[in-house]
Amino acid sequence: MLNLNVDLGERSYPILIGESLLSDASLLQHHLAAKDILLVTNTTVGPLYADRVMQALQGNRVIDVRLPDGEQHKNLDNVSRVLDVLVANRFGRDSLVVALGGGVVGDLAGFTSACYQRGIAFAQMPTTLLSQVDSSVGGKTGVNHPGGKNLIGAFHQPSVVISDTSTLRTLPLRELRAGLAEVIKYAFVFDIQFLDWLERNLDALLALDPAALAHAIYRSCELKAEVVRRDEHERGDRALLNFGHTFGHAIEAATGYTQWLHGEAVGTGMFIAADMSARIGLLPREDVERVKQLLQRAGLETQAPRFGAAKAHDYMRVDKKVKSGRIRLVLLEALGRARFTADYPDDALDATLASHFG
Amino acid sequence: MLNLNVDLGERSYPILIGESLLSDASLLQHHLAAKDILLVTNTTVGPLYADRVMQALQGNRVIDVRLPDGEQHKNLDNVSRVLDVLVANRFGRDSLVVALGGGVVGDLAGFTSACYQRGIAFAQMPTTLLSQVDSSVGGKTGVNHPGGKNLIGAFHQPSVVISDTSTLRTLPLRELRAGLAEVIKYAFVFDIQFLDWLERNLDALLALDPAALAHAIYRSCELKAEVVRRDEHERGDRALLNFGHTFGHAIEAATGYTQWLHGEAVGTGMFIAADMSARIGLLPREDVERVKQLLQRAGLETQAPRFGAAKAHDYMRVDKKVKSGRIRLVLLEALGRARFTADYPDDALDATLASHFG
Repeated sequence: MLNLNVDLGERSYPILIGESLLSDASLLQHHLAAKDILLVTNTTVGPLYADRVMQALQGNRVIDVRLPDGEQHKNLDNVSRVLDVLVANRFGRDSLVVALGGGVVGDLAGFTSACYQRGIAFAQMPTTLLSQVDSSVGGKTGVNHPGGKNLIGAFHQPSVVISDTSTLRTLPLRELRAGLAEVIKYAFVFDIQFLDWLERNLDALLALDPAALAHAIYRSCELKAEVVRRDEHERGDRALLNFGHTFGHAIEAATGYTQWLHGEAVGTGMFIAADMSARIGLLPREDVERVKQLLQRAGLETQAPRFGAAKAHDYMRVDKKVKSGRIRLVLLEALGRARFTADYPDDALDATLASHFG
Repeated sequence: MLNLNVDLGERSYPILIGESLLSDASLLQHHLAAKDILLVTNTTVGPLYADRVMQALQGNRVIDVRLPDGEQHKNLDNVSRVLDVLVANRFGRDSLVVALGGGVVGDLAGFTSACYQRGIAFAQMPTTLLSQVDSSVGGKTGVNHPGGKNLIGAFHQPSVVISDTSTLRTLPLRELRAGLAEVIKYAFVFDIQFLDWLERNLDALLALDPAALAHAIYRSCELKAEVVRRDEHERGDRALLNFGHTFGHAIEAATGYTQWLHGEAVGTGMFIAADMSARIGLLPREDVERVKQLLQRAGLETQAPRFGAAKAHDYMRVDKKVKSGRIRLVLLEALGRARFTADYPDDALDATLASHFG
């Protein structure tokens, strides 16, 4: 088992990564020290893993609540439903909310724990690769509003994250690939050596080799944690984590958030951002090819849907990263090094959009 | 105008106290620096004061939302309603929520601002004496759940508090007296000199003398701020602020939260707590008489409803301050000095309850 300490002063917490952790009673009892535990999961993950977690936690009072599966259920109504369960069972300030599932469950359960009695403890058991490498670090919790994603939320750090790599065996392959897009992102933006490692170990990751998975998750979380530590409330550096997201956002929005998984759109978005970086002379052209190769080996799409450059531009303009009307982009200065900038020639963006979306 | 700095490191903020501040355009524009402002008020306060605030803020985009008046409307549905207004008007992270009203408006608007986009700026314009001396310091925001008061909330500090003492001229006298109970509480718990001052200036306060009001509000906030600074997230000292609240809670709960105002119940609760302090030899009996005199001069009730000692005991047991089944109490060691303790003879509590509720 790997153990990464996320260093946030008095809000520091460990991320534990390894095989079959969810069945490890002594591990769970050590790290989830609370008399009363609310286990929040969904109707897909619950039947697969809730029993073993509740078995491992016997001795504690564990109540479980299963939400319907899917992003469309990440809303205030379901927060209210989870709050009702906490109140009905008279959970006190010293109780614990555990999120067992992917990002939707983690975001919703985390936000609920942030609000209940002005904040109670919260632990994550992420069961998708994306949530293991993304939402397990950063303290962002929240739900969607009909007017926009994640508009309602709080910063609330977990007390522990337990990433059981064996849960990835029940994850659909398409979701594994989408999670790999985020892993690869950390390498492109921060760490050329991790990129080398990924190129050597991609087949092992796709084959769900436990040691390879554990290292990829560990290093991804470590890189993200370093950024978050410097910028806990997202005022600066943290923007680099959005590499590929602005172009990817256009793909997701234009396809109604239903056809492309977030990680898939980010994968294609990273290729487009790399291409634009080369167009303005920041990145050598052969590095763009290296980006493309790795994404394709991971089974990710590199061709955006051709709904037109103008439409892509419109969708990018309503992204949160727009400031004073100008689209700011994360671009690569080299493999393993990125910058967040509004300083680029407009015609380079136009040419990029025409090439990929036109 | 008095100006108190609440010192909370990077979350520090000023409390401005004086006459007619809500009409002072240059003051408001200086302290409420945001392009987009949501003014949250209610149907009682809005017609009295919203116009002058919006007048003073012309030049900014100000949207106002008026909630129904009353504690029963402090719920998640109205949070959702305010969030809808923020989203519908495309308010960004740099926008500001202003609460114009009493504690209900402040708690609800504050919680909404804590959740919107994971936290936007928040300013308070408290228009009741209670909210000017209580919720303006401490950062507690939140709403009620059918299962309990303030069960849903967040710690979220305001960026500024503007306490306009002239708004107290439209406050019902009964609410002014209830607010005075909290002012008097700070003196009993923390500051004998402030108690002397209150005894000398009580008539001026009841006559709404601006200078007396400003001093009472300033000193109350200063005393509360010192406790909050030492204990921002309520783990220790802050419990002393609950003097009178545990006995008062029994009165409020037994009467269905409808007949007694919170401050009225706290007033009577303080007298009971002082009496109990004398029964166990902590406080001289003549000091209990001094407590009673001041409360009565403020127009507060000192006799609890006689619904029986057993019922009072039951209601006290479900209060949040209970730990390991034992009721913890804030008792007076002297006028101006209190302790939070579970160390008292059970029969002293029984005798106290029999005397006041039996």
